[in-house]
Amino acid sequence: MPMVPHLVTALTGPISELEQRMLDATPAIERWFRLEWMEHTPLFYCAITVRNAGFKLAAVSNDLHPGGWDLLTPPMWPLAVQSAMVAIEKICPEAKNLLVVPVNGLHSAAQVRSLQQLQRILYRAGLHVRLGSIDPDIKTSRSIESPDGEPLALEPVLRQGARIGLPDFNPCTILLNNDLGAGIPGILEDLQQQYLLPPLHASAALRRRSQHALAYEELSKRLGKLLGIDPWLIYPLYAACKPEAAFWRDELQTQVDAVLSRTRRKYKEYGIHEKPFVVLKAEGRGGTLHTLRDAAEVAILLPDPELPPEERPAFFIQEGLLTNECVGSCAAEPVVYVVDRFVVGGYYRTHAQRGADASLLGPDSGHAPLSFAEATMPPPPGHKLGASAPNRFYMYGVTARLAMLAASYELEASNPEPQESY
Amino acid sequence: MPMVPHLVTALTGPISELEQRMLDATPAIERWFRLEWMEHTPLFYCAITVRNAGFKLAAVSNDLHPGGWDLLTPPMWPLAVQSAMVAIEKICPEAKNLLVVPVNGLHSAAQVRSLQQLQRILYRAGLHVRLGSIDPDIKTSRSIESPDGEPLALEPVLRQGARIGLPDFNPCTILLNNDLGAGIPGILEDLQQQYLLPPLHASAALRRRSQHALAYEELSKRLGKLLGIDPWLIYPLYAACKPEAAFWRDELQTQVDAVLSRTRRKYKEYGIHEKPFVVLKAEGRGGTLHTLRDAAEVAILLPDPELPPEERPAFFIQEGLLTNECVGSCAAEPVVYVVDRFVVGGYYRTHAQRGADASLLGPDSGHAPLSFAEATMPPPPGHKLGASAPNRFYMYGVTARLAMLAASYELEASNPEPQESY
Repeated sequence: MPMVPHLVTALTGPISELEQRMLDATPAIERWFRLEWMEHTPLFYCAITVRNAGFKLAAVSNDLHPGGWDLLTPPMWPLAVQSAMVAIEKICPEAKNLLVVPVNGLHSAAQVRSLQQLQRILYRAGLHVRLGSIDPDIKTSRSIESPDGEPLALEPVLRQGARIGLPDFNPCTILLNNDLGAGIPGILEDLQQQYLLPPLHASAALRRRSQHALAYEELSKRLGKLLGIDPWLIYPLYAACKPEAAFWRDELQTQVDAVLSRTRRKYKEYGIHEKPFVVLKAEGRGGTLHTLRDAAEVAILLPDPELPPEERPAFFIQEGLLTNECVGSCAAEPVVYVVDRFVVGGYYRTHAQRGADASLLGPDSGHAPLSFAEATMPPPPGHKLGASAPNRFYMYGVTARLAMLAASYELEASNPEPQESY
Repeated sequence: MPMVPHLVTALTGPISELEQRMLDATPAIERWFRLEWMEHTPLFYCAITVRNAGFKLAAVSNDLHPGGWDLLTPPMWPLAVQSAMVAIEKICPEAKNLLVVPVNGLHSAAQVRSLQQLQRILYRAGLHVRLGSIDPDIKTSRSIESPDGEPLALEPVLRQGARIGLPDFNPCTILLNNDLGAGIPGILEDLQQQYLLPPLHASAALRRRSQHALAYEELSKRLGKLLGIDPWLIYPLYAACKPEAAFWRDELQTQVDAVLSRTRRKYKEYGIHEKPFVVLKAEGRGGTLHTLRDAAEVAILLPDPELPPEERPAFFIQEGLLTNECVGSCAAEPVVYVVDRFVVGGYYRTHAQRGADASLLGPDSGHAPLSFAEATMPPPPGHKLGASAPNRFYMYGVTARLAMLAASYELEASNPEPQESY
């Protein structure tokens, strides 16, 4: 694929050992996933940020309302279409119409391209697709200019009884491409006889990163056992700090220190000469990510030790993973897209100004295509790595699917109405 | 895809109209397939030869034990892997081991490459795969030299009670990659607790082309209705001639004449200035294909009017389709691979010495890769063809899936033990 930039990765010892183990255990891993998916329904879609630190590799975040569909390269499209077909078939084989609910607010050129690509994938999978906005500012249908000339039609969602739709468009399935970070709007509450994907409790307003991390940790331990490896090599340590704690900032400091100490011990065990760090994130999605190398930095970040409980943010503390990947001179991290239970592609998120220990997400993020599709076929069984070019796709794909499975467990645990499976 | 040769196709009026109709009806077509697959289980795999005559397009043969897996280009591999995952999940999610039964006899370099690629696809989909030969000449395990250096291990199949396997290898699923043209060997009969894919009645020794053609015709009529087109545009006319007929050669002449006459009427209706022809094929697979332009040619082909019934071949008479495709200066026809209910790719079969009205299958056939994957995404709904490069992938894929569905119907109808779904 000459249009895909050459990807430079310094594969160090442990990670290629991990990769070799995963490749050798392919039938066992795939069988494990097959049996898990029988019990746990995958979400319609998600996009997982994976970090390859050289000595360990793990999913660090899981977006359940992913944009960026336009960043998948053409060879990946058929995979996305095929996976969407499988998902639709399972949810509602009789489906004719699907309504996509995009994010509120002004739509950037990138968002328009992403929505157009998502719409094409779903159309190709066999659905009439229209975009229904829940933005209170969208009161009439409008046509948004698109960078490639074809306009995007955006219409205000209408509610009728316990269903939503558009004029002459009665969808059986609603696909949220909006994480509802500002709260759950009434128009989406108590829908009946319509599939809402993902469910409302997957929204940023209700979701808790620590709940996902718990599920991901437990699954990593089970997969680690199957692979015969220390599960720490495939999941980040973490802690949560609830705003209710009596000495809240002290509690946060204690938790940050605990994650740093546990990471330090692991670094020592593996002879890793790096300084451990944690990333402080809001429990819901969004918000600024802070990189801390010392618990004392908590006091600098939060000068007031005793904010009133209602003003305290709920924090999630995650072991920081260095990224060992770069595209050109930019630090890079793979973002892997999963539809239903299938990896459909991804891209590299890059940042020219940030280092291997920082979040690469931000207004100055760049993107590099990832030549996933061509690298998918593993070397034949028994074949040793090194004889061919490194193949990280399978390892990334296993990691991403582990995060998709963790999201299924997470949403089962957080489901306010456990009788509904979607 | 610079490594894929540019494909020259003279798209004439009617075929691009058909293509436009299919693209416009994508959601309806996909929904129709979704509902059909709920009632009719697709086969594990098949490879369909499609002929695009310019004015019509149809599947002309369906190989239920396909080779040529090495001819799929790398961008198609992930699709094949993903489809195989879906198939396995449905057949036997607990599966660990799968036994592939290859063709008997000496293995050409092309056959070895195909088997290696098939083995890799299945391994990647999550199975331990070994090759078990039913060739009576293979009495001990052997290693076949492979063109790319990696040898292929071939072992004689062992039967134990109602199961087959290999030493230390107890497969739950047997995948036949051998059409059993010489008859059903006893070692494969009455297997129990093992899935045999495709079932024995899909074998060349038992299958009848006319049974497949009947199912394909009926499905074409239903799809044609859905598309609002004359179904003749998507299926070839045909007739069968049973060896039991009293005046057998006369009967064959009558049937050949009937197919020629019906074709001639259709050509007239559509203003096609070509000479109709039929292709005479054996009802089972294999055998020489004969192109006839006049019923009188039957007497030249079969000088003896009254062979004893046991010596008479069972003939299938199919409306001949010109191929309007060429790669360079060679006549070409697409061969489309379907795994479970998904199109996973294909290639162009070419022949330098044969014309657009002849079979391109033979020892001198060539192959050209088909850049399927990149052409998969259709133009957006409402977008008119001509504004972008022609996209035949979707149309070929619909045709191939129609043939896969016809094979499901065919095997349901010919199943000697209707209680078993595989």
